[in-house]
Amino acid sequence: MNEYELKQLLEAVKNNEIDIDEASERLKTMPFEDLGYAKVDHHRALRTGFPEVIFGATKSADQIISIMKKLAADGGNVMATRCSADTFAKVSREIPEAVYHEQARIIALMQEERQDKGRVAVVTAGTSDIPVAEEAAVTSEILGSRVDRVYDVGVAGIHRLIARLDVIREADAVVAVAGMEGALASVLGGLVDAPVVAVPTSVGYGANLGGISALLSMLNSCANGVGVVNIDNGFGAGYLATMIAKDKK
Amino acid sequence: MNEYELKQLLEAVKNNEIDIDEASERLKTMPFEDLGYAKVDHHRALRTGFPEVIFGATKSADQIISIMKKLAADGGNVMATRCSADTFAKVSREIPEAVYHEQARIIALMQEERQDKGRVAVVTAGTSDIPVAEEAAVTSEILGSRVDRVYDVGVAGIHRLIARLDVIREADAVVAVAGMEGALASVLGGLVDAPVVAVPTSVGYGANLGGISALLSMLNSCANGVGVVNIDNGFGAGYLATMIAKDKK
Amino acid sequence: MNEYELKQLLEAVKNNEIDIDEASERLKTMPFEDLGYAKVDHHRALRTGFPEVIFGATKSADQIISIMKKLAADGGNVMATRCSADTFAKVSREIPEAVYHEQARIIALMQEERQDKGRVAVVTAGTSDIPVAEEAAVTSEILGSRVDRVYDVGVAGIHRLIARLDVIREADAVVAVAGMEGALASVLGGLVDAPVVAVPTSVGYGANLGGISALLSMLNSCANGVGVVNIDNGFGAGYLATMIAKDKK
Amino acid sequence: MNEYELKQLLEAVKNNEIDIDEASERLKTMPFEDLGYAKVDHHRALRTGFPEVIFGATKSADQIISIMKKLAADGGNVMATRCSADTFAKVSREIPEAVYHEQARIIALMQEERQDKGRVAVVTAGTSDIPVAEEAAVTSEILGSRVDRVYDVGVAGIHRLIARLDVIREADAVVAVAGMEGALASVLGGLVDAPVVAVPTSVGYGANLGGISALLSMLNSCANGVGVVNIDNGFGAGYLATMIAKDKK
Amino acid sequence: MNEYELKQLLEAVKNNEIDIDEASERLKTMPFEDLGYAKVDHHRALRTGFPEVIFGATKSADQIISIMKKLAADGGNVMATRCSADTFAKVSREIPEAVYHEQARIIALMQEERQDKGRVAVVTAGTSDIPVAEEAAVTSEILGSRVDRVYDVGVAGIHRLIARLDVIREADAVVAVAGMEGALASVLGGLVDAPVVAVPTSVGYGANLGGISALLSMLNSCANGVGVVNIDNGFGAGYLATMIAKDKK
Amino acid sequence: MNEYELKQLLEAVKNNEIDIDEASERLKTMPFEDLGYAKVDHHRALRTGFPEVIFGATKSADQIISIMKKLAADGGNVMATRCSADTFAKVSREIPEAVYHEQARIIALMQEERQDKGRVAVVTAGTSDIPVAEEAAVTSEILGSRVDRVYDVGVAGIHRLIARLDVIREADAVVAVAGMEGALASVLGGLVDAPVVAVPTSVGYGANLGGISALLSMLNSCANGVGVVNIDNGFGAGYLATMIAKDKK
Amino acid sequence: MNEYELKQLLEAVKNNEIDIDEASERLKTMPFEDLGYAKVDHHRALRTGFPEVIFGATKSADQIISIMKKLAADGGNVMATRCSADTFAKVSREIPEAVYHEQARIIALMQEERQDKGRVAVVTAGTSDIPVAEEAAVTSEILGSRVDRVYDVGVAGIHRLIARLDVIREADAVVAVAGMEGALASVLGGLVDAPVVAVPTSVGYGANLGGISALLSMLNSCANGVGVVNIDNGFGAGYLATMIAKDKK
Amino acid sequence: MNEYELKQLLEAVKNNEIDIDEASERLKTMPFEDLGYAKVDHHRALRTGFPEVIFGATKSADQIISIMKKLAADGGNVMATRCSADTFAKVSREIPEAVYHEQARIIALMQEERQDKGRVAVVTAGTSDIPVAEEAAVTSEILGSRVDRVYDVGVAGIHRLIARLDVIREADAVVAVAGMEGALASVLGGLVDAPVVAVPTSVGYGANLGGISALLSMLNSCANGVGVVNIDNGFGAGYLATMIAKDKK
Repeated sequence: MNEYELKQLLEAVKNNEIDIDEASERLKTMPFEDLGYAKVDHHRALRTGFPEVIFGATKSADQIISIMKKLAADGGNVMATRCSADTFAKVSREIPEAVYHEQARIIALMQEERQDKGRVAVVTAGTSDIPVAEEAAVTSEILGSRVDRVYDVGVAGIHRLIARLDVIREADAVVAVAGMEGALASVLGGLVDAPVVAVPTSVGYGANLGGISALLSMLNSCANGVGVVNIDNGFGAGYLATMIAKDKK
Repeated sequence: MNEYELKQLLEAVKNNEIDIDEASERLKTMPFEDLGYAKVDHHRALRTGFPEVIFGATKSADQIISIMKKLAADGGNVMATRCSADTFAKVSREIPEAVYHEQARIIALMQEERQDKGRVAVVTAGTSDIPVAEEAAVTSEILGSRVDRVYDVGVAGIHRLIARLDVIREADAVVAVAGMEGALASVLGGLVDAPVVAVPTSVGYGANLGGISALLSMLNSCANGVGVVNIDNGFGAGYLATMIAKDKK
Repeated sequence: MNEYELKQLLEAVKNNEIDIDEASERLKTMPFEDLGYAKVDHHRALRTGFPEVIFGATKSADQIISIMKKLAADGGNVMATRCSADTFAKVSREIPEAVYHEQARIIALMQEERQDKGRVAVVTAGTSDIPVAEEAAVTSEILGSRVDRVYDVGVAGIHRLIARLDVIREADAVVAVAGMEGALASVLGGLVDAPVVAVPTSVGYGANLGGISALLSMLNSCANGVGVVNIDNGFGAGYLATMIAKDKK
Repeated sequence: MNEYELKQLLEAVKNNEIDIDEASERLKTMPFEDLGYAKVDHHRALRTGFPEVIFGATKSADQIISIMKKLAADGGNVMATRCSADTFAKVSREIPEAVYHEQARIIALMQEERQDKGRVAVVTAGTSDIPVAEEAAVTSEILGSRVDRVYDVGVAGIHRLIARLDVIREADAVVAVAGMEGALASVLGGLVDAPVVAVPTSVGYGANLGGISALLSMLNSCANGVGVVNIDNGFGAGYLATMIAKDKK
Repeated sequence: MNEYELKQLLEAVKNNEIDIDEASERLKTMPFEDLGYAKVDHHRALRTGFPEVIFGATKSADQIISIMKKLAADGGNVMATRCSADTFAKVSREIPEAVYHEQARIIALMQEERQDKGRVAVVTAGTSDIPVAEEAAVTSEILGSRVDRVYDVGVAGIHRLIARLDVIREADAVVAVAGMEGALASVLGGLVDAPVVAVPTSVGYGANLGGISALLSMLNSCANGVGVVNIDNGFGAGYLATMIAKDKK
Repeated sequence: MNEYELKQLLEAVKNNEIDIDEASERLKTMPFEDLGYAKVDHHRALRTGFPEVIFGATKSADQIISIMKKLAADGGNVMATRCSADTFAKVSREIPEAVYHEQARIIALMQEERQDKGRVAVVTAGTSDIPVAEEAAVTSEILGSRVDRVYDVGVAGIHRLIARLDVIREADAVVAVAGMEGALASVLGGLVDAPVVAVPTSVGYGANLGGISALLSMLNSCANGVGVVNIDNGFGAGYLATMIAKDKK
Repeated sequence: MNEYELKQLLEAVKNNEIDIDEASERLKTMPFEDLGYAKVDHHRALRTGFPEVIFGATKSADQIISIMKKLAADGGNVMATRCSADTFAKVSREIPEAVYHEQARIIALMQEERQDKGRVAVVTAGTSDIPVAEEAAVTSEILGSRVDRVYDVGVAGIHRLIARLDVIREADAVVAVAGMEGALASVLGGLVDAPVVAVPTSVGYGANLGGISALLSMLNSCANGVGVVNIDNGFGAGYLATMIAKDKK
Repeated sequence: MNEYELKQLLEAVKNNEIDIDEASERLKTMPFEDLGYAKVDHHRALRTGFPEVIFGATKSADQIISIMKKLAADGGNVMATRCSADTFAKVSREIPEAVYHEQARIIALMQEERQDKGRVAVVTAGTSDIPVAEEAAVTSEILGSRVDRVYDVGVAGIHRLIARLDVIREADAVVAVAGMEGALASVLGGLVDAPVVAVPTSVGYGANLGGISALLSMLNSCANGVGVVNIDNGFGAGYLATMIAKDKK
């Protein structure tokens, strides 16, 4: 219920078109509806073309199909993360327009034009970090950002990173994806002016503790302007990067 | 050395105004200088008014005074974080224009106009989180952002947070400061559209593990658009928030 | 042996109906029997209709069948937790009256009327938390509580939780089930007056550390009236909730 | 705003005693006010005599005095936890009716009659656990419960615990306070029918990890009906115990 | 080389039966040989009947057969731990006298009389702890101790433990096997006078952290006379218990 | 109440020397008294000369004096651990016969002859481990064992350890005290036949994690016959060692 | 671009053979190219015969074949670590000269003579550590070191280690491979003068925490001259050992 | 006893200059002496000028003076680590030739010429890492290496590091000292060919976990040729670096 509707309701009370008990009943539940409403409303302007998102990891293909159909009903974009190729095969039979981003493991159903949401650079330390990076990159693209991918430029061969700095410096937000010692985030943070979204990955073994080593590195970065997301959370990084990049002059 | 200077040097070579050995010597060291140069240059446009920063925690008052004087020599702004009132008393005697932000524990020496760097909201769960929040807020202000403070609106009294949403929703970037269970970041992430910079604090005891509980909460946030910094890192949060907020349309 | 029986035994000694050696023998073992007896006796009044419980996770279908038959022999209720559908298929052939709660993974054999044990609300943050929530809910129901389920009302969409507060506030005990950052327990603790039994779940990945993140959040809750059980321990939460809810005026 | 007031407002609209813009304005802000209101209202009935609580650990004596005076202004009860004797000395000068519970480190200002809130037993493993236990016991008493203290009955001398079972079994809620291996919670859980609120303490050294050993023990209790609070959180335990104990038939 | 042999060698030098270079060569390597020798010798008296032990977990059936044959060649006893039934099937074909202890997962080849090595009681908290307990019990038996098994007497039903105390108190060493909160070790430590060898097991889930919860409990035991071995290390516990129990008057 | 007394009571009932109500009353409380009684009785024979023990770390000098006097009243031995020299100065004024073991930080009051309790060797890796070792050694001596001290023979200079093996091999129980990497326990376990009680110490820094590194080393010892106690728990090690050493043939 | 080429370019400028814009363009990108160049150049002299390395764990056989062919194209040596026998079977069909080191799980393609790179001793505590040790040993051999293997000489049987000291003391660098308590590194560090590269392995169970116990032991070694690599990182240890051993007089 | 002396002893036996009992006695103790002897002997050649080392952290000034005097008696060099200025003041009064390295906190007494032990570069990320770096640098110098210090070249300003590469590349061993995210070790490992000894420091706060973050980073380094020592272990790093650097061609 927005202000206009509220006033209409009050007019109706005033004009005896609705009795007080009924009006009271509708208003009593308003706070909570309204809360949601306010949020949705607030979101509307800047969310044009933003997809609805399904976290696919813990859902069956049938569940994903059913949710995707429901969310797609109003003509917006829909994406499902962490979906296997098998899942996509089943989804594709039911929703033929759905597209699969294999490395990113994302199924996307794009029905709506996206507005421009700035530029994002997605950078990885190694080749094993690429699946997480692709989840970030494809997410940013689906949300409307232009994405540059700069892969396999880890700090053990720092010259490869430096050689690609020009591309990275064009971005409004940089996603740094790295496992093992996760030093990429600090090095990038020192070389670029845009905010760096750091994604630790579980790449490595032994004392990498499933990604905790890279996570701690990134949290303790000696560079300014670095924000960290959960281990392997490519989607979250891409989402945050686009939120940062959009509306930048 | 910028492109213009490089071409001037080459012209000088061409015109025999400089001999090849000397030119070679200057160019050989250029890569590294240039690297720094490129960075500084790239930074220049958007960094006008950005302060130089001294991490005061591990330095004596004398060291801070000496570094501050040196950094201030070129007329820019300088700030020192994690300084005690005692330290400020000594600094003040030597650098009378320096100002002390007591709760933030920041000494600032502002010599240069700041450009507008967008709006930042700094939100805390409890009153004990305020010193960290002030470090963030003052940092953002020194960097040029307009800051709204919304303190003591933790999730155990969610209505207080909701009552202040309008102010928070005006921000280009939101800093969420919380210790204990750190739930504020998730709740905020669900209620606002701007990126949320989450700062876990060490507030609490026992199983808070010095802030690890809040840190893990924030990293595992079920809300999108949340980036996390180190425990108690108010400075880093304020810096990142301004980097996000600036240049937003 | 209760007091009455003890006195009867002493009478028998006095009347020479039993000799001293035999009486001594019986009394010597009494302490320990009696200890158990006392407990069982103490339990009897309030335990009417309480089921015997089998922890099924580490037992074969055959073991479960055999234990269930033995426990059921005296006509009471019996439940087995963490049982797969396969296990139930086998149990069902031998004990046709047994019922399977699929999501809760509980097999129940109800032979006895339950007394009313108050009202319990079981609330989850996400859909992935539902299996643990169902274990709690079905446990509470088997023990005799009336259960309201309020699922998928996590704090990233706080309005959904607020919209269901009326139902939750009816409960004598609230079970809050959440993974990831586990903020639900704190938010609920601030919104309801009944004790909150918090169940962290292992839902999530990376820095959720198999549920530790939600566990720490819940232990550090800034809200009063929250007690925490082990990760994924739906049974324990349901049991504790009913113990709290029963006999409430 | 409650339903009665809402209907009055609508009547006023209907009767033209208030114009639509003003009514709209009041209703627009209602959701948030109302949310708080609803909570306070819902609390009222059962909270009679409940104190306002100040967490004193991070506050100066002056801050505590000022907050205590403000909270006490409406005639209710007020308590401040984790206050030193020094703090109390200062508080006492300003608020002479305040009382100090030394071991519990609680300052209480009781201005209002308490309703009966059931019976709570507070049990400790060792003598070093007593300060935490007293925080729980005094909290429960201030909230209105009758408290039985059973101290120093740890499991290394199990007969002492068993000798006191009769008292413990009278309680509607049992608080088990233990450090080191924290076994007391499990043993109590097996011996009583009331819910057990387990409080791990930081008592011990080395591999007790500041209370983590007792915390893990309690979370992994093999007994049913045990809920755990944070390490050394006597206040939280007393609060939860009284919430459980009150209104028990 | 023992003292007797050393003197014989010196006699041979003196009598010119061996030249100095050869004697020097033999003596030069003596330190290390002798070190081993001393140890074996020292062990001999008390090790009569002690088996050679093979850690089977990381070895193939073929490897176990080959090592077992080699070790058995001198007529002593041999045991292999952590062997599956499949492994035993293969071993049995090659070494028909080998015996399999199924729950303990131990293959034993007994060729030599054992000396009496005192009495050991092996006690478990739950039924899931029995495999680890059997590894301890069978190890102690193979080494020569008489073993009493007291299973499923965990502290949540303390009367069952007390009912079996007489048997446990007969032992020269007690092995306490428990997972989850591991309270059994402390309770036993308070009830018996013999040393308690505590074995944490990985039984449990969630915050049991794979056995760490029980391990920490046992290390922090408030009872005296408790020594702890690694998680699930039944063999080590049985071995240590027999070392303690043997030669007790 | 022992069997003899029980039969006397029954005789009295039979002979009408005591009425049934009184006998019933005495027998009803017997279980718990008896439990304690049984334990004390069971302990008596082997505990002759065993001291009562006070854990001094968390107690004031006044508390220690008062407890010590009470425990000493029946003529037995008393010891207090973790007492500072200051504490002893005060104790000494009140209890002049008390003796202070400075490095061990133990105050002892010996009033009773000790029986021989076997031989214990206490071995340390470094000189910094000596205070913990002395706590173990003095504890064992007070309990009645003969103790050999072999200090500063850590594995980085293995020849020093080997040079002292003869003394160590005389012991019925060996206490291995080591911080840092704690390798001493494994090396000793491989060189001696007596049970090894391993005491990790908090000696070290950084990745020693306050003694956790040595603790984990000792728990994972590749040698058989090693039982571990808590970090820095010299008292517990000495107690366990004497329990193992006593009554060895 | 090296100095010679730089001067040639300047000569060309001077001689008008190249215009300033083109020269400027080439020099502007020089820093980064040059950085890489410098590195490669610097490496060349001492890297003769060093293989290119492929981390095989996360790559398919097809990927390994393709990368190996590319790297081998210039006639140098190539090795791929963590390859299964299945992978080798496929590689072998395409690259018949490739050789498989089964225990080390390394595929090597040697096309170039190696220079002598000193002597390395690889020592293990147990037989289960051998695969990691072989990865180290084969890596060192491929890089050009002579390797002595001394396996199964763990500290629980210290005499076996001492018996092999002569061989170990010949080495320029010693690799110590051990799981469980990892004491081998300290003992070796005390017995040899060469640097010790310590490799913790994940061998063990329970409180070995997947190799963390051995890792901590090695980091806390009381011996000097020990450097530690990641858990199970045989390749890294072999590589570092050869870097240390080469060019030793 | 070396081979020459052994043969002399055997000659004496042969010539009846020493009787067999006495020779036997001397030879019996030889193994252990000899073990030490062998080590010392083996060490001699390369250890000329190596200092004896005292770990000063846990010792009083008096203890340090007394040990230093004893160790210095044979004319060699002696050093004591982790000594305060106060300690040095006292030492200086007794041993006037002793020298204090203030930042390194090392007291050195140099009485003997050092042989050249190669070149070591000590590199730090920040200024706060300098005390640890100085401990490493001074240790290496005392041992005989030439040391280049390259401080405050952390990866957040990578150009400063690159600008100093020429100096670093001259070293035979590089010590990388860094706290926070510890990325310096990886970046250096990728830029130099010499072995890198990585020293994590406890510099930082919050999620640096007292140095664990830098430690994990360094262990998970994506660069080859990196060995790690304990947190803040500058001495160990300097010692290992010189062991690596010495005798390099």
